[in-house]
Amino acid sequence: MSRNIVRYADPEARYGLLEKDGTIRPLAGSPFESLETVGKATHLDRVRLLAPVKPACLYGAGLNYIGHAREMKLDTPAFPMLFMKPPSAIVGPEAPIVYPIEARNLHFEAEVAVVIGKAGRRIPEAKALEHVFGYTCANDVSERVIQAKEMKQGCLVLGKAFDSFNPMGPSIALGLDAGDIEIIGRVNDQQRQRSNTNDLVYSVKALIAHLSSGITLHPGDVIMTGTPAGVGPVVPGDIVEIEIPQVGILRNPVVAEQA
Amino acid sequence: MSRNIVRYADPEARYGLLEKDGTIRPLAGSPFESLETVGKATHLDRVRLLAPVKPACLYGAGLNYIGHAREMKLDTPAFPMLFMKPPSAIVGPEAPIVYPIEARNLHFEAEVAVVIGKAGRRIPEAKALEHVFGYTCANDVSERVIQAKEMKQGCLVLGKAFDSFNPMGPSIALGLDAGDIEIIGRVNDQQRQRSNTNDLVYSVKALIAHLSSGITLHPGDVIMTGTPAGVGPVVPGDIVEIEIPQVGILRNPVVAEQA
Repeated sequence: MSRNIVRYADPEARYGLLEKDGTIRPLAGSPFESLETVGKATHLDRVRLLAPVKPACLYGAGLNYIGHAREMKLDTPAFPMLFMKPPSAIVGPEAPIVYPIEARNLHFEAEVAVVIGKAGRRIPEAKALEHVFGYTCANDVSERVIQAKEMKQGCLVLGKAFDSFNPMGPSIALGLDAGDIEIIGRVNDQQRQRSNTNDLVYSVKALIAHLSSGITLHPGDVIMTGTPAGVGPVVPGDIVEIEIPQVGILRNPVVAEQA
Repeated sequence: MSRNIVRYADPEARYGLLEKDGTIRPLAGSPFESLETVGKATHLDRVRLLAPVKPACLYGAGLNYIGHAREMKLDTPAFPMLFMKPPSAIVGPEAPIVYPIEARNLHFEAEVAVVIGKAGRRIPEAKALEHVFGYTCANDVSERVIQAKEMKQGCLVLGKAFDSFNPMGPSIALGLDAGDIEIIGRVNDQQRQRSNTNDLVYSVKALIAHLSSGITLHPGDVIMTGTPAGVGPVVPGDIVEIEIPQVGILRNPVVAEQA
């Protein structure tokens, strides 16, 4: 059975162990150190959930499902296609995705996000899963017009980096099988994406090995594994839900930026 | 006259105000809060300097000097060409730049780095300099083979992200004229780059306005403004120096990675 970690406002941010009935047992400190609980339990109904982790680094992988590459009319990449997003883009469950004034074509992207638990460099695939803390849902929101212009130049930041362009949550699930995690994307209760990490072009292990060939990964760093087929535009008023069954549902409304 | 902030190991990391004679007066806390000094002074000769800031986000600008775009046989970009680097790549003065096992063509890049001092979003160019704390030297080390392969895909991370690929320092100089900062790059005492921010394609103001159109900038975030003409390969055994006269000389040896 998976265990679930949440981060919540109490009112200051803290971590807790979430039980099936919604009970939250506060953790003594950082979940990357210990899962020891301390003090009085609370409940999901009485707190506001935050993004379950505040990473120093947030990495994304492009075109990492064959179906998504096909719908974008692009080949799957010959090696992992990496980008970075600023942590300032991260928001938690129920927080609005702000549709920027200059946006013309805003897409949601349901993704399985890997939370690193143990630091490492040049991690071989065979040991990669020892460095995983758990998994959460991410929405890799992307403004396609800006993204396409940037990628034509050869780099990508702003198209995926606007404040609120990276909802994450609602929990981090521990103990999942990296090669068999279901991922679902819905807009206004309608299913738009449904896939599984068994369809990844570059597996969780492969992404960790590739990134850590150059970069020391640290506890709390997040690697988003790419989005499956079925992405599409959202507009103010829409509600986007990303679900991994063992993690829960990450729900965020899209709202227009106030000029 | 410019004032200079350093960060140093004492043995724990702390900030100090650096005087012309090398005296360091410890700051009471974060320089982004106050420049109040406290306690006993020390001296440059008695401490080890660290990278002068630990940013949450480290942004770079590509092809931002006409001369460099020309030497790369590329057009200057129609809008700022942004990339991100992980803070794990940052090292301080005298720290080795580690030449990775898989590197084939490692280049140094002398750059003026802008340290943000005041948070902001949608900062207009007219107010951009109010958000600058100061300036430091950066070496945007790049492995050109990996960089070129990545940029062909449309994103860029690993080619500029290896551990130690972003030396910064030795100080942060306050009170400089953003439009007139001299930048010099040397390899083994031979001058290879010499330019000035008055030659930037996108000025410091323009970069801040562009980035902050989407991203809330925070105190300590760093924007590297691009490198002028004269980049070239370095190999283990070389010594790279980046100089901004009011900041000092950022000196780093290149050493081979131990297999």
